[in-house]
Amino acid sequence: MDPSGLGSASPAVMEKNGTDAFPLTMNSSVKQETICIFGTGDYGRSLGFKMLQCGFSVVFGSRNPRMTSILPSGADVLSYSEAAQKSDIIIVAIHRDHYDFLTELIEVLDGKILVDISNNLKINQYPESNAEYLAQLVPGAHVVKAFNTISAWALQSGALDASRQVFVCGNDSEAKQRVMDIARTLGLTPLDQGSLMAAKEIENYPLQLFPMWRFPFYLSAALCVFFFVYCVIRDVIYPYVNEKKDNTFLMAVTIPNRIFPVTALILLALVYLPGVIAAILQLYRGTKYHRFPDWLDHWMLCRKQLGLVALGFACLHVLYTLVIPIRYYVRWRIRNATVKQAISKKEDPFSTSTAWLNDSYIALGILGFFLFVLLGITSLPSVSNKVNWREFRFVQSKLGYLTLILCTAHTLVYGGKKFLSPSVLKWYLPSAYILALIIPCTVLVIKFILIMPCIDRTLTRIRQGWERSSKYSKSALNGKTYMK
Amino acid sequence: MDPSGLGSASPAVMEKNGTDAFPLTMNSSVKQETICIFGTGDYGRSLGFKMLQCGFSVVFGSRNPRMTSILPSGADVLSYSEAAQKSDIIIVAIHRDHYDFLTELIEVLDGKILVDISNNLKINQYPESNAEYLAQLVPGAHVVKAFNTISAWALQSGALDASRQVFVCGNDSEAKQRVMDIARTLGLTPLDQGSLMAAKEIENYPLQLFPMWRFPFYLSAALCVFFFVYCVIRDVIYPYVNEKKDNTFLMAVTIPNRIFPVTALILLALVYLPGVIAAILQLYRGTKYHRFPDWLDHWMLCRKQLGLVALGFACLHVLYTLVIPIRYYVRWRIRNATVKQAISKKEDPFSTSTAWLNDSYIALGILGFFLFVLLGITSLPSVSNKVNWREFRFVQSKLGYLTLILCTAHTLVYGGKKFLSPSVLKWYLPSAYILALIIPCTVLVIKFILIMPCIDRTLTRIRQGWERSSKYSKSALNGKTYMK
Amino acid sequence: MDPSGLGSASPAVMEKNGTDAFPLTMNSSVKQETICIFGTGDYGRSLGFKMLQCGFSVVFGSRNPRMTSILPSGADVLSYSEAAQKSDIIIVAIHRDHYDFLTELIEVLDGKILVDISNNLKINQYPESNAEYLAQLVPGAHVVKAFNTISAWALQSGALDASRQVFVCGNDSEAKQRVMDIARTLGLTPLDQGSLMAAKEIENYPLQLFPMWRFPFYLSAALCVFFFVYCVIRDVIYPYVNEKKDNTFLMAVTIPNRIFPVTALILLALVYLPGVIAAILQLYRGTKYHRFPDWLDHWMLCRKQLGLVALGFACLHVLYTLVIPIRYYVRWRIRNATVKQAISKKEDPFSTSTAWLNDSYIALGILGFFLFVLLGITSLPSVSNKVNWREFRFVQSKLGYLTLILCTAHTLVYGGKKFLSPSVLKWYLPSAYILALIIPCTVLVIKFILIMPCIDRTLTRIRQGWERSSKYSKSALNGKTYMK
Repeated sequence: MDPSGLGSASPAVMEKNGTDAFPLTMNSSVKQETICIFGTGDYGRSLGFKMLQCGFSVVFGSRNPRMTSILPSGADVLSYSEAAQKSDIIIVAIHRDHYDFLTELIEVLDGKILVDISNNLKINQYPESNAEYLAQLVPGAHVVKAFNTISAWALQSGALDASRQVFVCGNDSEAKQRVMDIARTLGLTPLDQGSLMAAKEIENYPLQLFPMWRFPFYLSAALCVFFFVYCVIRDVIYPYVNEKKDNTFLMAVTIPNRIFPVTALILLALVYLPGVIAAILQLYRGTKYHRFPDWLDHWMLCRKQLGLVALGFACLHVLYTLVIPIRYYVRWRIRNATVKQAISKKEDPFSTSTAWLNDSYIALGILGFFLFVLLGITSLPSVSNKVNWREFRFVQSKLGYLTLILCTAHTLVYGGKKFLSPSVLKWYLPSAYILALIIPCTVLVIKFILIMPCIDRTLTRIRQGWERSSKYSKSALNGKTYMK
Repeated sequence: MDPSGLGSASPAVMEKNGTDAFPLTMNSSVKQETICIFGTGDYGRSLGFKMLQCGFSVVFGSRNPRMTSILPSGADVLSYSEAAQKSDIIIVAIHRDHYDFLTELIEVLDGKILVDISNNLKINQYPESNAEYLAQLVPGAHVVKAFNTISAWALQSGALDASRQVFVCGNDSEAKQRVMDIARTLGLTPLDQGSLMAAKEIENYPLQLFPMWRFPFYLSAALCVFFFVYCVIRDVIYPYVNEKKDNTFLMAVTIPNRIFPVTALILLALVYLPGVIAAILQLYRGTKYHRFPDWLDHWMLCRKQLGLVALGFACLHVLYTLVIPIRYYVRWRIRNATVKQAISKKEDPFSTSTAWLNDSYIALGILGFFLFVLLGITSLPSVSNKVNWREFRFVQSKLGYLTLILCTAHTLVYGGKKFLSPSVLKWYLPSAYILALIIPCTVLVIKFILIMPCIDRTLTRIRQGWERSSKYSKSALNGKTYMK
Repeated sequence: MDPSGLGSASPAVMEKNGTDAFPLTMNSSVKQETICIFGTGDYGRSLGFKMLQCGFSVVFGSRNPRMTSILPSGADVLSYSEAAQKSDIIIVAIHRDHYDFLTELIEVLDGKILVDISNNLKINQYPESNAEYLAQLVPGAHVVKAFNTISAWALQSGALDASRQVFVCGNDSEAKQRVMDIARTLGLTPLDQGSLMAAKEIENYPLQLFPMWRFPFYLSAALCVFFFVYCVIRDVIYPYVNEKKDNTFLMAVTIPNRIFPVTALILLALVYLPGVIAAILQLYRGTKYHRFPDWLDHWMLCRKQLGLVALGFACLHVLYTLVIPIRYYVRWRIRNATVKQAISKKEDPFSTSTAWLNDSYIALGILGFFLFVLLGITSLPSVSNKVNWREFRFVQSKLGYLTLILCTAHTLVYGGKKFLSPSVLKWYLPSAYILALIIPCTVLVIKFILIMPCIDRTLTRIRQGWERSSKYSKSALNGKTYMK
């Protein structure tokens, strides 16, 4: 947690002492490559220290060589022009605002490799990328964009994982190779993204804020708002209009406990709906080589995020349900009913069928939620990387549909005997959970049809490459762009 | 989540655009190694794109060079024989069914390195492995098996972690070295598994379905079935036979809430039992060099899976317990009792001892469950990799035994005053939780004996290599295979 | 889980068979580097097997070459002096206690690279590190410390992640480079820690037991003890002194359910307090270059651990709250009140305001806990590595403060109408939750002031490097060590 954004404090004692306690080598017969770093800010220092740790020789270039005293020992500090002459590769660890002074060094930097590691604060903050701007200022140098996705923190603490990837781009192939080799020696995995025109996208990459989660968030917000209004109409306004009852307090716990399960179930069904739609499309067209519509593609890419948002709502539903017996409203209602029954000395025989229905929908809900949590755990990056492809598909597909079945059954049995009885309609509006059942039941019914042997056989053949001759087939599409 | 198995859609915008928007290099003075890929299906394209990203030159070989238009830009497409001449290393990204056409290219492929990346659909689908079949078809080439454990998805999205490992095998050492170097450049970690005879096992590897989880699953299924029958006899059949009461509804929530905690406790005890048995064996034999029986070895290997299954049952038990006050059955029972007491105006004095026992077993259960969840969290791959060996053993061993103690105490106190009183026996069968206590108490008692200073000292000496002269000692075993 | 510490059994069938079933190469035209390993214990064998897998040639040196028969096939076993002559690099996989015999081999080992991989059992067990001791014994060899942080288990199972890092140190630069190259070929990431004087710290590193968690644990233990005593005085001693009531049973569930939420809230506020203090310091001094006091630095380093401990206490609070309706004490109290009301036939009108307050604080608690769990999930290593820096700060900072707000509001509303009324004071001591509110409210108020536009603007300028001329500014500090 670094909420105040105060920058990178050395996380481990190991690295903290490394700058002063241990001179790096006493006996230097063979030296590794020398790297020059322009700039002695936080990032420049972290990168320099990391490079020293991995065996490189490092020389810093600074505006005021004598005034910086916190650099890792073993690294020299020189003026910019002196430092530039010590190495072929110069890492430009200074803000874009200060790039202009580099024009003074054009002759020194000629033929060198300049590595642009900068980041901006906003997406598309400038008309051209920082790397292209640098290339304009120093035309004789080979500019390579790299390392901007690794934070100083990750460099120091060594916590490199999926963030081990560095995107590299540049116009000169040999310069790129050398930078990629340096990256590999640091324990990173460089990925060549092409020419310097890719720099803009590389610079935007760390500024994204959960791009794949936006559609699920907006969709669930829309569903929540819709069902909130719907439930308020049925549970607050209708009783007020009809019986002058003040039910506003229901908006704190009762109504959320109707919105959340409904949203969770609809979102969970929407995880499996695109697969079903895609299967229908493939069956209809008789081929797997015709590309899907863009909206279907995008929908399929954020299925994991849809499922995790659904799991979040399911967790909220569970918590709101488990607190029911603690609520004053519920305790008052139960106490009132008990007192009334005691005073009227009325008998209340035990209804086994009610007990069955009640215990069943509770049990179905618990089992469905348990499997849902298992699905969520297998979505964790480290767990999903540990299982192989067959195991992952087993969990996400078979267990996933089982979860959908259990949660749908939970909602169906919850209705119980009063499921579709008209007495529950208020102003002809059914309970919210009835609306929630539409999409899940559709998905399950279509999926059930799709696994019928005859249809399943055809679909498998199509997915293995067979094509029914039609206007969608591959030969007819030759020359056009297509996918899958 | 990719439940419909529709194949690999490009997950991130980054890679998606990479194929068309960014020509890879404009200035190509030095080129990396050229790799040839036979086949332009999903996997071939993903692998080719990844190799371009990491700096290789890629040329595809295809049946119809002119008809494929979705390949990454920067890669050429030629006929098979032309493509084969451009490179020493040829990756065979086509189905085994089509290997036979390679016999036409025997002269072109002579002396080349053929990399077999294929997977099958079933374990041991063919008598010989795909790699060996390929080697038979093209005897002059050096066949190396590699890359079959990396899915196209992982290649594209870069989500390489434990799945970073690629198993490599082959008869020619130099060919293997070159393939392993390519793997390292892609950011993977190659592991040499030996000669081509290892190919069969490498091909079976991604087809396994949770091999380490089978024993825990079957065991817990057996325990659940046994205790289900046991509880049905005690709670449904016995009341029906004796009092003609219809208790079938208890099978939905009440009886599962007896089965799950019992199974959880037994499985948790079975996690620590093999360690205790092994210690006894070592003490008995006086040496650590005599190998354990196979069943004990296998049991010790799936301790983590046993513990996680036990944690799953414990979570179900917690959920089934927390919903108790919401159940119609429980509410009816409480309401009935309250009404009876109100009508009869009977006094019910507060029993402090009952409050103590009740609150105690609840508190013990909560604390035991909390530690159990902590154990589970430290089993997550990323967390268990972040702690060092001493920390991991502290958590799994000390906290683990503390969890077992708390959960056993929870069950003991749950019995309360009626723990072993005969009135609870139905047809001489005790409550299920009494049965559950047998193994945990045994484990805890033996462990307690084992940590007595005298015995612990002897055990530590044995584990550090000391041997009591006996027929089990190392010198007596010289020449035989042994472990530890 | 390996609680009994019985050593490394081969985890996967793959590796287990590798030692006997598959001869490693049949055709050996080109061989990789040859590594010599002294010692055939568990670790030596695991390391040797891993090296064979990664393409090295391995020769073992052993006291009794003929008596060891469990080595990986493909590796030779020779006497120490014979083995030492086969390779430049010798890995010393024997206990420090046996280093002295190496003095017999001084001539053979002259000029070789000796890799010390040993670990001790206690921190600072010996006056000098094992590597330095080895260097004293064999002065002609180049001693390099490496590989001691990788356990034999991790080598075999390939589960290398954050534990992929190996610390390397040594006096000879070329020797270090060769060892680092070997480490990279094994798929590890070597980090150069300097000269052989760093060996002591490298050897202490795997012996640490959760160093960053000590302060949070001690602090929460202190808080728990304090509030336990405080609550016992108010809820057990005071009723006993005043009304002779025996409330000791409250210590099992009720009093913990006061301690845990209070501790959780205070710890959560302490996660955000250092950031606020640091901001105030920076505003006061007018510069970001003056280093913070040591205690503030250390506090900021363990914010994540503080937050996770707080989350643990919050989970316990949730569990203790959800079991309330199952407790005998609570059921007796409710039943008693209901019976009393039934007997006295008293009316109890429904209080909407009580329902609002009650449902509100419950809802605030649930939402606050839900966000708290989200924060915890993003702290998991694999998740926090998957998000970029901007996403991580969004979650930890914005969502973090939202969590603090919700939890503080939950506690405030929990007080309800009786929040500060004097009737709740027992011996002038307010309820524990009142005390808990002090720090969170302070943090939130100061943070609210800090985000006022005028103050926020100044703070942002300071953090971007601007300095108000004062005695704290960088020029005044020139020459002294400083950080940030």
